[in-house]
Amino acid sequence: MTDKRKSKNFTSHIRISSAACFGGTLEKEGPCKDYFDGFISDEPNDGETWEKAESDMIEKTVTRLIEKSGVPEKEIGLILGGDLMNQCTSSAYGLEGFDIPYIGLYGACSTFAEGIITGSMYLEADAAISAIASASSHFCTAERQYRFPLSYGAFPQGTSQHTVTGCGAALIEKCDGDEKGVYVKAALPGIVINRGITNAANMGAAMATAAADTIMRHLESQGAALSDYDMVATGDLGKIGLEMAKDIMEKYGFFDKKGVLTDCGTMIYDLEAQDVSCGGSGCGCSAATFCGYIYDKMSKGELKKVLLIGTGAMMSPQSLLQGLSIPAVAHLVEFEAVL
Amino acid sequence: MTDKRKSKNFTSHIRISSAACFGGTLEKEGPCKDYFDGFISDEPNDGETWEKAESDMIEKTVTRLIEKSGVPEKEIGLILGGDLMNQCTSSAYGLEGFDIPYIGLYGACSTFAEGIITGSMYLEADAAISAIASASSHFCTAERQYRFPLSYGAFPQGTSQHTVTGCGAALIEKCDGDEKGVYVKAALPGIVINRGITNAANMGAAMATAAADTIMRHLESQGAALSDYDMVATGDLGKIGLEMAKDIMEKYGFFDKKGVLTDCGTMIYDLEAQDVSCGGSGCGCSAATFCGYIYDKMSKGELKKVLLIGTGAMMSPQSLLQGLSIPAVAHLVEFEAVL
Repeated sequence: MTDKRKSKNFTSHIRISSAACFGGTLEKEGPCKDYFDGFISDEPNDGETWEKAESDMIEKTVTRLIEKSGVPEKEIGLILGGDLMNQCTSSAYGLEGFDIPYIGLYGACSTFAEGIITGSMYLEADAAISAIASASSHFCTAERQYRFPLSYGAFPQGTSQHTVTGCGAALIEKCDGDEKGVYVKAALPGIVINRGITNAANMGAAMATAAADTIMRHLESQGAALSDYDMVATGDLGKIGLEMAKDIMEKYGFFDKKGVLTDCGTMIYDLEAQDVSCGGSGCGCSAATFCGYIYDKMSKGELKKVLLIGTGAMMSPQSLLQGLSIPAVAHLVEFEAVL
Repeated sequence: MTDKRKSKNFTSHIRISSAACFGGTLEKEGPCKDYFDGFISDEPNDGETWEKAESDMIEKTVTRLIEKSGVPEKEIGLILGGDLMNQCTSSAYGLEGFDIPYIGLYGACSTFAEGIITGSMYLEADAAISAIASASSHFCTAERQYRFPLSYGAFPQGTSQHTVTGCGAALIEKCDGDEKGVYVKAALPGIVINRGITNAANMGAAMATAAADTIMRHLESQGAALSDYDMVATGDLGKIGLEMAKDIMEKYGFFDKKGVLTDCGTMIYDLEAQDVSCGGSGCGCSAATFCGYIYDKMSKGELKKVLLIGTGAMMSPQSLLQGLSIPAVAHLVEFEAVL
């Protein structure tokens, strides 16, 4: 990015040394169910509020992550977190109990990738030797804030996505480079693109161009093709948005010959069997899918080179009511498993 | 921060090569008025919405910044931005027109310092040679969202602060180190602290402990005293919060012998003559005060060593209604003028 069109290739050895994720009811019934560390109920789990349930889920996930990592909390240099709630309160309250410096992010559903990228920059800059990236969403808090409280019984539209109840958190650490594991190799922050879409039930379409733009810039920058990767996962365009991104890339000559292009929103649910319209969405979707399913497959060597492209729709309910269209951004991280 | 209690001292030469700020009606009448690049009306300036007025102000500020810097837009590697609006839409819409990769931040009133720190990490990591940090707030958008729409005619409480209508943006650039200018020397991201305060009209008190904690950790880390600096500016504790932070530091043996401790919220307004209770607040307060008044004084050599401590109250109107207290964070940047 000295030329901003170029991706940053990390010169430090930055490894995801541990990952953890929690999900909700629907995630527990989905195809990724075996890769979660635990589940919460979609109901407030302590009889209080949905918002507290989301914060509790974040606290549980990061606590589990720290336990799994074996790294003492006081040695963790930084936590980068975000969510969908107004003023990012799920993260502020969920993480306030940790004695770790906190950098709050807002990237909508791109937050997890944004956190991995930004955390890796702090490590590459020698400002810390370890950092946690965390992102969450909760179906009930998001429905109330963005659409209607659940008790209204509103119906989803055909192009809409289902907000994942989930949190994913990963610990990135600087290492010598000879350890086995999942490495953060490169990153490319996205440019905001607004294609004029005003329908909040069609966010995949609003984000497809941003996703395609970032992926193509990365491939050009690295001199690579889609087929050089084992998985190129957007998160979360949903089924229709993913098709649109694919179409855009084909127009520019980037073909998915090996069928590696997929989307976290289509992986976390069974779109045939579960009532989720075009798939999952929300900061927690790509965070949990990466920290659970993808991280597991990479750790076992079943996936070697993976691109994760976090896609965020940066509108608010108010901005749409005021007639504005949806600005979108897509941040890319390149991972490589070394086993 | 390899030990997280330690500040990061930048090894690269990172310079604020340009800064710009816009304000509103009250800022135009305040003691910092001569340091603004321009002003907007507190009324929607195009007859549309307050929210659009805030986005327009951000766009104006960053446009002016790029003009002043002389750096072509396509060479700027990154823009880090944030504001107080739900889903940070003021920044998303205000910055969507720039063809620059975008990292969205949420740090409440600490956002500008968070942006300077995080942007400097991207530069130190060699991911970019230049980056813009931007933060904004608008009295009317914040009043409607956090308190009451203006037309309700609600009265402020004695401990409350007045949200600044303002935006500040700074361009940080890597350089050889022999250029004159204002350098980013060191940084320390803060740890979230929640002291149990539930009154949104007393945010200074909620943030005072976080500010004192970060300042004291920085001084210990650098082996420095308050008197080693020409200005130690929090942003924004307001008058009462600043007194509390001072008291806390004195209890730990950190005395402000030279009277360098001040607050952006008390600098931007005349607390005697203007009806602003305890002073200014909002992301735009420390951003505009730094990018206008402080940057000017440093550029002229009237201030040499300055600490800016961005302080953020990380609650939302909803979290307070749900009975939660205010988590606060304070991020510190150390600047030095080399002339």
